Amino acid sequence: MQGSRSLRLRLRVPISALSETSARPRQRAQLFDADPTLADRPQISSPLASLRMAKTEPSVFAEFSELSEKYHAVNLGQGYPDFPMPDFVKQAAIEAIQGDYNQYSRPAGHTRLVRTLAARYGPKFGRALNGAEEIAVVGGATNAIFSAVVALVDPEDEVVCVEPFFDAPKIAADLMGAKTIGVPLRADWAATSADWKLDLDELEAALSPRTKLLVLNTPHNPTGKVFTPTELEGIAEIVQRYPGLVVLSDEVYEAMVYDGLEHRHIASVPGMFERCLTVFSAGKTFSATGWRVGYVIGPKSLISPLVRVHQASNFSTPTPLQVATAMAFERADQRNYFDEFKSNLQAKRDKLCRLLRVAGLAPIVPEGGYFLLADTTKVGAATPFPLWEAPEDIPLRDRRDFAVCRLLCERAGVTAIPASAFFSQGHRHITDSLARFCFCKEDDTLDEAFRRIVHSGLGAAWI
Amino acid sequence: MQGSRSLRLRLRVPISALSETSARPRQRAQLFDADPTLADRPQISSPLASLRMAKTEPSVFAEFSELSEKYHAVNLGQGYPDFPMPDFVKQAAIEAIQGDYNQYSRPAGHTRLVRTLAARYGPKFGRALNGAEEIAVVGGATNAIFSAVVALVDPEDEVVCVEPFFDAPKIAADLMGAKTIGVPLRADWAATSADWKLDLDELEAALSPRTKLLVLNTPHNPTGKVFTPTELEGIAEIVQRYPGLVVLSDEVYEAMVYDGLEHRHIASVPGMFERCLTVFSAGKTFSATGWRVGYVIGPKSLISPLVRVHQASNFSTPTPLQVATAMAFERADQRNYFDEFKSNLQAKRDKLCRLLRVAGLAPIVPEGGYFLLADTTKVGAATPFPLWEAPEDIPLRDRRDFAVCRLLCERAGVTAIPASAFFSQGHRHITDSLARFCFCKEDDTLDEAFRRIVHSGLGAAWI
Repeated sequence: MQGSRSLRLRLRVPISALSETSARPRQRAQLFDADPTLADRPQISSPLASLRMAKTEPSVFAEFSELSEKYHAVNLGQGYPDFPMPDFVKQAAIEAIQGDYNQYSRPAGHTRLVRTLAARYGPKFGRALNGAEEIAVVGGATNAIFSAVVALVDPEDEVVCVEPFFDAPKIAADLMGAKTIGVPLRADWAATSADWKLDLDELEAALSPRTKLLVLNTPHNPTGKVFTPTELEGIAEIVQRYPGLVVLSDEVYEAMVYDGLEHRHIASVPGMFERCLTVFSAGKTFSATGWRVGYVIGPKSLISPLVRVHQASNFSTPTPLQVATAMAFERADQRNYFDEFKSNLQAKRDKLCRLLRVAGLAPIVPEGGYFLLADTTKVGAATPFPLWEAPEDIPLRDRRDFAVCRLLCERAGVTAIPASAFFSQGHRHITDSLARFCFCKEDDTLDEAFRRIVHSGLGAAWI
Repeated sequence: MQGSRSLRLRLRVPISALSETSARPRQRAQLFDADPTLADRPQISSPLASLRMAKTEPSVFAEFSELSEKYHAVNLGQGYPDFPMPDFVKQAAIEAIQGDYNQYSRPAGHTRLVRTLAARYGPKFGRALNGAEEIAVVGGATNAIFSAVVALVDPEDEVVCVEPFFDAPKIAADLMGAKTIGVPLRADWAATSADWKLDLDELEAALSPRTKLLVLNTPHNPTGKVFTPTELEGIAEIVQRYPGLVVLSDEVYEAMVYDGLEHRHIASVPGMFERCLTVFSAGKTFSATGWRVGYVIGPKSLISPLVRVHQASNFSTPTPLQVATAMAFERADQRNYFDEFKSNLQAKRDKLCRLLRVAGLAPIVPEGGYFLLADTTKVGAATPFPLWEAPEDIPLRDRRDFAVCRLLCERAGVTAIPASAFFSQGHRHITDSLARFCFCKEDDTLDEAFRRIVHSGLGAAWI
């Protein structure tokens, strides 16, 4: 792709002066639980709440959604499309509702949907899939992750997350009394998301016999990294040395991979199917994040306890939306839906990259997903510490990137999410200069965000 | 009601010779956890499952759904309508989908729905409700119960359930490491569900400072009992002596109350709002059990941790179905929907009662809900113990009512659910002679079930 090659040459984003890859210590990775700033955050303060609730914390999205509303900001924070979902999928839902698919479904998933998924994913996984035993349909990817943690993780077990990362596995692990450990992607300079690398030695150092889950995410939120076959094989090799370790692979952005790259399932690496729960989202794939239809593929030994949890917690997933999802997959290929979806999003990615670059917020070009990280070093933000030397032990809310994102919202009317919120304490300096922007938005929305940033004077606009 | 009055005179159903109300021991009620038959039941046997999974057991519905399918039986087991949901509610869903309500909603519930619910339930609860803080929209009543248990109940806490009861609270308590204690409704003879009584002394004996939740259900599944204001006030008086005790009141059948009776919320008893989470189901109310839309009303101190759990486990409830539910409530009254719904179901109740009586399976006439319990003493079932003297310590699956329901399914092709499955060990003899039948079915379905029972010779038909 000509466009992205030239971006690679022109954009070299400094991640952080503190991210000294070569001098990186090889000690055990960070325990989220040891986070000294946790106590500073608002807690559930109900005297009748269970003790486990004291371990939860409000998400960064709560703060920025509220701020966004307050300042009537253009919201590039949360990952949902502001354009309508495809008509042929709406039509499928209408058919399902009118066709009286409105009563309970089989808890593990409506038969038509699991059959459709088995046929679709078998070739991608390199094996015949048994829809009745190797697929679970759940209430979105968050529900998949939560159910997997309840089904597999005991108190004091450890959950290792490649970070930066989506917070669902940590929240679930907190509730179940388990520990979460972060292993960061690192990059000294990044032009594209491919420049973020996972150090396999650092990953291995984070594992122990108590590690129950390794949480991966490819294509990756928030960087946009698409893990290569070689990277996945390297991870798989390590995983296979730990017989009690399960990989929870969040692949909800599988349909959004750009520049001709291909998404690869870690479960398709030889020997890995039996060790993986792979999580997908029909909501992401069909631009219907509000449908809450997700599904998980894995061996019966892992799917079966997950289904038991799902049955106990939700009983089943909404039937008309499951049947509609089956129809959507059945009809998508003949409409060339996936190719069009991908090229539309790639155009939006390119557009937002172009606009942010002009506005002085240089992007790290993402290879996949909905999001990109952009460099905010040119945005002035009043914080009590020097730009590049933010100590690790300050509360999350006082970090520079939080201040920058608040400024962007209040003064420019554009919402982005501070990237350090996606890291554990100890690794937050890695992204003190970055903010996450979502590009699955109408072109007008992206243009308006650009205009606002430029007019606010917060970027370092060249126009 | 003339019809039901005459039923009362003609039907006197023996519940069990062992249910000696007067000689009933006043000791602590039964611990489900102490159930010696638990070990006999199939467990999740995945070596990678969490330890908490070993505490779960397959539900009675799994066995009888499978059997029902195998014998192509008329399924009066599971509680869902086999008639279509109302057209005006389908239409609302279609409008919501076409109106682009397809992205994430607010985790606690779509604003339009919580406002509509606040306006609707305020008068019923006898206070102004704040939709933003006192209502949570969740993925069905099962999800409400699960979320409440995770949010409120710690390991070793106790959950007291009035039994017979729907199994969701016990399963959730098992997963969270809590104990479940059953306090039975009792009746020596029952003509209608009003004859089932809760002994308040027995309830109080079951409570302790470790009791975190008292689970009530009115209208009641499986008996059909509608708790009277006096009964609810008696329970409330006891609850108020335990400052740490919360009432989880499952009121999903609120719209199905017959013979001119009125449903009453225990949360509307003075002083009780702050102590109650009341659970409702749009799926039950609008005959769309597959939509998985439930909601919970309670004080902010209880709703807030519940929402935190819901956000962690499901993020939000499907937006188009929430918006459709709001529209359905907004449009229901002008269509006289609730009155029609109630009278249709009452007619079905009366029909099934009549048919079962003729077939020799005398019903206990339910005052509310979807279900009735019927006497199976005239159905021969080969069990190794005398009809009225089943010991308590035999496995659930070997109990007489299980044998009867298997016979009904295999030989008559009609599925009902053995009532002892709804009781804890120690109280199962109370219903060894009863089976649960669901009457929210097409008239043809009810007629066909009747014909099959009569032709099988299993009942004691007079025709």
